Amino acid sequence: MEWEELARDLSQQTDSKIVLLVMDGVGGLPADGKSELEAARKPNLDALAKAGVCGVSDPVMMGITPGSGPAHLALFGYDPLKFQLGRGILEALGSGVEVGRNDLVARGNFATVKGGRVVDRRAGRIPTEENARICGYLNEHLPQRDGIAIRVFPGKEHRFVARFTAAGLSDALSDADPQAEGKAPLPTAPLGPEAAKASAIVNRFIDDVAAVLKGEAKANAALLRGFSKFPSIPTMQELFKLRPAAIANYPMYKGLAKLLGMEVISVGGETADLFDALEKNWADHDFFYIHYKKTDSMGEDGRFEAKVAAIEALDPFLPRLVALRPDVLVVTSDHSTPSCLKGHSWHPNPFLLVSPTAGVDDVAAFAERACAKGLLHRFRSISAMPLMLAHALKLKKYGA
Amino acid sequence: MEWEELARDLSQQTDSKIVLLVMDGVGGLPADGKSELEAARKPNLDALAKAGVCGVSDPVMMGITPGSGPAHLALFGYDPLKFQLGRGILEALGSGVEVGRNDLVARGNFATVKGGRVVDRRAGRIPTEENARICGYLNEHLPQRDGIAIRVFPGKEHRFVARFTAAGLSDALSDADPQAEGKAPLPTAPLGPEAAKASAIVNRFIDDVAAVLKGEAKANAALLRGFSKFPSIPTMQELFKLRPAAIANYPMYKGLAKLLGMEVISVGGETADLFDALEKNWADHDFFYIHYKKTDSMGEDGRFEAKVAAIEALDPFLPRLVALRPDVLVVTSDHSTPSCLKGHSWHPNPFLLVSPTAGVDDVAAFAERACAKGLLHRFRSISAMPLMLAHALKLKKYGA
Repeated sequence: MEWEELARDLSQQTDSKIVLLVMDGVGGLPADGKSELEAARKPNLDALAKAGVCGVSDPVMMGITPGSGPAHLALFGYDPLKFQLGRGILEALGSGVEVGRNDLVARGNFATVKGGRVVDRRAGRIPTEENARICGYLNEHLPQRDGIAIRVFPGKEHRFVARFTAAGLSDALSDADPQAEGKAPLPTAPLGPEAAKASAIVNRFIDDVAAVLKGEAKANAALLRGFSKFPSIPTMQELFKLRPAAIANYPMYKGLAKLLGMEVISVGGETADLFDALEKNWADHDFFYIHYKKTDSMGEDGRFEAKVAAIEALDPFLPRLVALRPDVLVVTSDHSTPSCLKGHSWHPNPFLLVSPTAGVDDVAAFAERACAKGLLHRFRSISAMPLMLAHALKLKKYGA
Repeated sequence: MEWEELARDLSQQTDSKIVLLVMDGVGGLPADGKSELEAARKPNLDALAKAGVCGVSDPVMMGITPGSGPAHLALFGYDPLKFQLGRGILEALGSGVEVGRNDLVARGNFATVKGGRVVDRRAGRIPTEENARICGYLNEHLPQRDGIAIRVFPGKEHRFVARFTAAGLSDALSDADPQAEGKAPLPTAPLGPEAAKASAIVNRFIDDVAAVLKGEAKANAALLRGFSKFPSIPTMQELFKLRPAAIANYPMYKGLAKLLGMEVISVGGETADLFDALEKNWADHDFFYIHYKKTDSMGEDGRFEAKVAAIEALDPFLPRLVALRPDVLVVTSDHSTPSCLKGHSWHPNPFLLVSPTAGVDDVAAFAERACAKGLLHRFRSISAMPLMLAHALKLKKYGA
């Protein structure tokens, strides 16, 4: 019996409330002796560490650097080695694109091609309004093909989502993106014989786009990657009997949340928006996932001081969360993003849990090295959900 | 290769002796800043913590609250997610009821039914002697059915075990117990088509009992739950080459021990009885499981002070155990039973191990937070058996 089956058997609906605050990529590494979390002034986060129990969690397993998808899946109680999601599907769902069983989706970039070479992979980051105009034009002028419906959906700047609807499309396709400038555009290739049809359709689409947009100065080609179909994944209602909500601003995280059955509460980019939404929707859900993106963005950019500032900018809002008196409050990251590495890393996440049934350990700060000495020790992130459900008294006893 | 296979390959019989003292449900939570173990005066247990190495163990996995069956299986080296035991089989074995391959057993309560409703699920807790009289009467007067043998065996107060012997009985049956008073008695239902025959036999038995006992003032109906057949599970002799003994007073634990091939040494309810039996049988076994129940009972009743007293009552006996000089001594709980939760919980167990090959860490007290800082860190309880066998030098090298 695995956790997924145990969860179906043992979970029960109750009135208790869980809040999972994800400070994306907050885990880091020391520069001049202190990590971003160790350098930040964050009295409220530290007070929570003092009030509860702490530990560190490995998103997938020791040494593995996860993408945002697997890292979040693990936190939500889904084995990231079992459930593998294409980035395209997340982007599509996050952008509000409806995806059904016969749909194949991909993330797209408009690019500039000259003399058979990609000279700008982002078409000079065309304005978002330009992108909308071009997508509208494509949807009107792309040649119709029998039994196939294709639509493109504009995103921010040069980004779009392409959706191919036809029977029997496989997502076993390589990226149609040379990933570097100065190279020729790259067609997709089937990764297995079952994807031959999809590959042909996608490559004809790429040619059609180039033909329709040949008059554009910048956005005259389409690069596509992350081909994916709607995955078969149980919802959090099915597995955990939760009424879950996601409070997030970025498409990826909203897409993932929607996929798992969460009600997505879209918010603006201000930190206060997250807490306004939490307060407003407090009565309607028993599980709240709050996504704070800035810590990851600053880590990705390699900006140590800006990441410290992002931590310090969130800290004053914590009392608003605590005032709601959640039965279980967890603050952690999905993965670490040390500024010095300018990207995701394999380092475990600092993790704090406050609950009346959790007791208190002697960790006095929310930071990597402090949490590593906590009562929760070191665990895989997939244990976060059983732990949250248990402390919320939402899991029945296993066996007699 | 899994632990079970490793154990078969690597275990070897030696003269070294292991003692596993299970303080049932001893793990707890702080009230006024201290847990039951932290509040108790227990110089001998603390001396053992000082003399050995400590850690904490999760019975099944983080967040999962186990029943006594899975929690003990894990401690004995059996994966509790692989081996699932019905409570009926444990109760039957613990009561000394012989169970064979064609037998289906269930736990029963005598109950009082009036006007088609269960008015007392425990028949006023009739005296144990009354129960014996009623079971004797039933075994004589229940109508005989072709190809089916049914016997009931009295337990304490209102409890009994029912054994159905016939070819092709499945235990995929729902409980025949409304679980609440004021409701009508509930027949069993088959959980799969293979259990249709067993279901019909059990429901006719329930009707027969009501007919035969209709003159009884209190015990005039039977509620049945935990239907189970004899499970297929290897013994500790087969897996670990041990000559194991169980020193226990309660049926459940004796039943489980018997199932795993332990010689069951039944003892009275006094704490001294456990240690008398240990001394008396010391020469005949190389693995001793000692079960101390009071800590769990007091936790289940929500009696913090009484649980502290139960810990303090056991402590003075520890020197008698140490005087026997076991090669490996482990003291732990099967699961936690915090008084404030009045039931089993998912919190990890404090664990101490004393052995010449274990070394010493700086844990100075046998308690949850103290043990969590020990050299053994945090592990799943299924690792307790490999650890005990290893320190007893009963495991050969894996690979060349």
